[in-house]
Amino acid sequence: MIHNKHLGGQTVALAHPPSVLSFANVGGKQEQEGPLADWFDLLNDDSFFGEKTWEKGESAMQKAALQQALDKAGLQPGDLDYILAGDLLNQCIGSAFSLRQFGIPFYGLYGACSTMGESLALASMLIDGGFAQRAAAMTSSHFCTAERQYRMPVPYGSQRPPTAQWTATAAGCTILAAEGPGPYITHVTCGKIVDKGITDANNMGAAMAPAAYDTLSAFFRDTNTSPSQYDLILTGDLGELGHSIVRDFFQRDGVTLDSRYQDCGLLLYDRQQQDMHAGASGCGCAASVLNGYVLGGMREGKWKKVLFAPTGALLSPTSSFQGESVPGICHAVCICAEV
Amino acid sequence: MIHNKHLGGQTVALAHPPSVLSFANVGGKQEQEGPLADWFDLLNDDSFFGEKTWEKGESAMQKAALQQALDKAGLQPGDLDYILAGDLLNQCIGSAFSLRQFGIPFYGLYGACSTMGESLALASMLIDGGFAQRAAAMTSSHFCTAERQYRMPVPYGSQRPPTAQWTATAAGCTILAAEGPGPYITHVTCGKIVDKGITDANNMGAAMAPAAYDTLSAFFRDTNTSPSQYDLILTGDLGELGHSIVRDFFQRDGVTLDSRYQDCGLLLYDRQQQDMHAGASGCGCAASVLNGYVLGGMREGKWKKVLFAPTGALLSPTSSFQGESVPGICHAVCICAEV
Repeated sequence: MIHNKHLGGQTVALAHPPSVLSFANVGGKQEQEGPLADWFDLLNDDSFFGEKTWEKGESAMQKAALQQALDKAGLQPGDLDYILAGDLLNQCIGSAFSLRQFGIPFYGLYGACSTMGESLALASMLIDGGFAQRAAAMTSSHFCTAERQYRMPVPYGSQRPPTAQWTATAAGCTILAAEGPGPYITHVTCGKIVDKGITDANNMGAAMAPAAYDTLSAFFRDTNTSPSQYDLILTGDLGELGHSIVRDFFQRDGVTLDSRYQDCGLLLYDRQQQDMHAGASGCGCAASVLNGYVLGGMREGKWKKVLFAPTGALLSPTSSFQGESVPGICHAVCICAEV
Repeated sequence: MIHNKHLGGQTVALAHPPSVLSFANVGGKQEQEGPLADWFDLLNDDSFFGEKTWEKGESAMQKAALQQALDKAGLQPGDLDYILAGDLLNQCIGSAFSLRQFGIPFYGLYGACSTMGESLALASMLIDGGFAQRAAAMTSSHFCTAERQYRMPVPYGSQRPPTAQWTATAAGCTILAAEGPGPYITHVTCGKIVDKGITDANNMGAAMAPAAYDTLSAFFRDTNTSPSQYDLILTGDLGELGHSIVRDFFQRDGVTLDSRYQDCGLLLYDRQQQDMHAGASGCGCAASVLNGYVLGGMREGKWKKVLFAPTGALLSPTSSFQGESVPGICHAVCICAEV
């Protein structure tokens, strides 16, 4: 690589780190009962969010998250040069239908549960490259839409194995700008697809952990830093098993990840009181934890340097039925309170 | 907008237009029997492409398109800084599974049949912004995977209305670089979602035409140019009806689009000999026509300035079952033989 912005490998150091202008999140009933409830802008215990179907409800969540983020920044939709968004629903209808009325130039993404990282990475580069003044990054997931699309209709009451996770009913939106009060996106690392042959579609944590390890390792190598230099390292929704696999992988390299390594899937719910098996999952998990607890905490001075690295499982029910294993991917963004 | 690269509105003028380094396409049986057969790198009359399922066959097509494009440029996978890809399959498994073995940093996209435009637009900005030396853009579609996912399993032999289009079984890949022999991507226009309320999922042309008109109008307005200044204006897969709707819309503005306005969906098949109703469709339609007939023709001097504007229909079977209309989007890239 010749470019000075590119550190070699997979990581880009942004020359003029874009700033978070505003952020917002929306959650459902379980999120309302969880320990991060106070960090949500909107909570609704109606799983339909006032709509007639759960899919329309998921779109309503994204619409509300974007509107909240715009309002908090005092912006109109026309002030955004781009929005980058996606979700887990087939053909990403959560995003497409939520954005219909806004008239914002739209790049649709599919990164499964890594979408919050992917959208922030691309939005940051569009701003740093001089192609935009302001851009939004957004995603969502919904327990009921995900269950009936990926597994079984909710009313069947299927039993879930201990490695299963609970898809968050939540959405998150970040608005970035060329200038602003921070925090700032300083680095982005684009992940490679990593597939270690896990075929159990009820064990996403194990399937995605190798991708998290791969991207985090690339980030530390490319930036010549070590985990101890970050106040918080946060994967998206690896859950209990995936989180411990990542720790194990680093341990083998002689690197100990201490309590500063967290996973959004272990933070969103109270795992003693709420029976969520291995933890939370879904695009909305990482998105809502970032766009509330994390960015809010950074603005309050809780952390100065955060490495946010959500992972996605690039499977579909069709690929699983056809005997395929589960490819994983992880996109990382480094967020700093000051630059 | 303050940035000098951004022309205002939705269009970016690239300061150092990235060059096409190589391009490749792959097609199936119908594509082999069509008028553009000589412009394909690989044609295979086995709809499974040697695999056990059509979905795996679609991944095999993408794999072959990328490998061909790498070979033609004398590159290894590690020489690409990014690949941006997506497809129509649920959870974009065509791309995810095709890219598993390559180890290239991957940004997954969902732009429905606009994906070839979206991927070229984002790849161009990543290169122009100094974030990459080389990046690939790729997409595919497959008649049999699309029919069974969106409509009916092929063996049912359902009758199709005259407005229906035939999903191309094809893939296309473009490798772009900061420097090269051309043609060059000079401008990109990011589309907005446009939904005029069409609810007939067998009439994609009518649903997507307003988005094509919206993005093309934005491009001409932002660049202060008129259609007559381009040698070829090419939408992706509007088919016969959508193509004539776009002409009508421009006519109302007093702008006549002459025979230089074409649609990939009207070029890929011989509509006298091959019974394809309103024409070809699918991500692979625009991708294979661009990465053969168009870029090949530009290298032979056939056209100097091409405006490539594929459209996507952002529906899913679920949204249609729930009574939703079909939102459309169109992303445009301007390709010039010289800069």
